[in-house]
Amino acid sequence: MDIEIRPARAGEVAAVVALLADDVLGAGRETPDDLTPYLAAFARLEADPNQELLVAVRDGVVVATLQLSILAGLSHRGGTRAIIEAVRVHSSERGNGLGATLVERAIAESARRGCRVVQLTSAHSRTDAHRFYERLGFSNTHVGYKLEL
Amino acid sequence: MDIEIRPARAGEVAAVVALLADDVLGAGRETPDDLTPYLAAFARLEADPNQELLVAVRDGVVVATLQLSILAGLSHRGGTRAIIEAVRVHSSERGNGLGATLVERAIAESARRGCRVVQLTSAHSRTDAHRFYERLGFSNTHVGYKLEL
Repeated sequence: MDIEIRPARAGEVAAVVALLADDVLGAGRETPDDLTPYLAAFARLEADPNQELLVAVRDGVVVATLQLSILAGLSHRGGTRAIIEAVRVHSSERGNGLGATLVERAIAESARRGCRVVQLTSAHSRTDAHRFYERLGFSNTHVGYKLEL
Repeated sequence: MDIEIRPARAGEVAAVVALLADDVLGAGRETPDDLTPYLAAFARLEADPNQELLVAVRDGVVVATLQLSILAGLSHRGGTRAIIEAVRVHSSERGNGLGATLVERAIAESARRGCRVVQLTSAHSRTDAHRFYERLGFSNTHVGYKLEL
């Protein structure tokens, strides 16, 4: 695949937000016509060495994204964790292995940074995503709880 | 309750590790007789403004702990998330409301920092913990996946 995977640039925030919004769950909660809050969040991510917003780019077009967060912690003998959030692959790119390539890149980056575990949560309704993560070696070991503030 | 809840101090790392190890799942994976990796992790947490290792202290004794991580991100209109990890309450303090007080403190701190959601995962085997989080208002919305590296 002629795909480049790398940290997102500020000029690509609109493209990332478009991916976030082009999603069954994301459609109702994103506002791609108002980038202000997204640009503020991007500035926070860029300033934090423990955060990476990755994009996959094909021919100059952002076609997939995920956020990788590296979290130190005491448990598991002071083991650092990686958390993957906000995984999106453009509908035209599904089923061609790009999503797996992107997640595997995040796993490799987590290993490079000394993480001992990579974790993520996936909404109960995303049954296709569950099969995808299980094929990549993830185990369904936990219940994922959320509390909206 | 005559309880103080505040960020852990370096001199309390041993007490926090003892709590992590006094646990069905933690017993097999923590090494309270070798604090070196824990002290290194504590130094990373202390240096990171997005991390808080909280302890509950009664009469100078650490009786509960949790880790709160604040994560910026683009999804949910640039909504910041809070993640709670490594919640432990000493066996002598269970059932008296201390765990709820500690988690509620973390929720309040998340709100103060502008988070729009608090999330956590709990191992499938921790059914008592699941009831505890549901009583606190958390919803079981996600599957929690882990990949050990």
